[in-house]
Amino acid sequence: MTHESRLGRLLQQLLWGRRTAALATLQTLPGAESVPFTTPAVSFVPYAIDSTAQVLVLHVSALAAHTRNLRQSPAVSLLITAPEDAAQPVHALERVAIQGQAVLLAPEAAASARAAYLRRFPEAAPMTALGDFQFVQIIPSVGRHVAGFGAARDLSAEELKALLTS
Amino acid sequence: MTHESRLGRLLQQLLWGRRTAALATLQTLPGAESVPFTTPAVSFVPYAIDSTAQVLVLHVSALAAHTRNLRQSPAVSLLITAPEDAAQPVHALERVAIQGQAVLLAPEAAASARAAYLRRFPEAAPMTALGDFQFVQIIPSVGRHVAGFGAARDLSAEELKALLTS
Repeated sequence: MTHESRLGRLLQQLLWGRRTAALATLQTLPGAESVPFTTPAVSFVPYAIDSTAQVLVLHVSALAAHTRNLRQSPAVSLLITAPEDAAQPVHALERVAIQGQAVLLAPEAAASARAAYLRRFPEAAPMTALGDFQFVQIIPSVGRHVAGFGAARDLSAEELKALLTS
Repeated sequence: MTHESRLGRLLQQLLWGRRTAALATLQTLPGAESVPFTTPAVSFVPYAIDSTAQVLVLHVSALAAHTRNLRQSPAVSLLITAPEDAAQPVHALERVAIQGQAVLLAPEAAASARAAYLRRFPEAAPMTALGDFQFVQIIPSVGRHVAGFGAARDLSAEELKALLTS
């Protein structure tokens, strides 16, 4: 196996093996001079993978700050990290950061996202019946995968989409 | 123990027991019309706690994107999450998100940060000797602690600082 294909295998295991991510959004606060003041906000999100649409899928509450932020600005960044091991150093922990665009799905357009989400999180079914939750696609644009010391590489949208198909 | 003090105990265990966080920064790309285009960026960071200064401590490389971002805009958001348990649902996983300001420390001002960092990460000592790494204080402003379903609360700077002192 080449170095590249070994890293690809590791990343696929990370993406499909983990269930939660950190989601960074832009939080725009009204400014005094019509110039809005923007800060980053990071929140915890369970995620699923919709391999048909080649996207990551979130399920967000209308009441959540990140949902308000996504409505104002769809640019997001998502971090998925291998688990900390109490006995091991953490600096070389495997992770992937994915830049993307969020698309809030109308209920009638969410069938594929819903199926992918409930496949991973069957326990979330009652929440998906509530009207104030919505499915969100994260369409990846670029990424950065760190698999350990000296094992980092940039990922294109095409590489990321390929990883989300299987 | 009151509900509040039980949550405080849980949060203290989370902050002192975990070693890594997701750091959201603002990434500002040069715009065509002198209006810069801003996106969020999230990255993986090991963190320590400097209980003397009541801050979180990071150690960043001059080459890292988050370091460039911090120099342009010190507003950050940090997420610390309890470990996923393979046998358990993840939606109610405990986490805390902390909004704060980053202060890049000159080497001569970094003694307390360095001591706190090396207490937690003795294996990082060789990296702290490199000239292209720098210590960063994260001064907390507000936070949001979710300890489970129906157990969420906002945290003030004072509450966060108290949690960082012991």
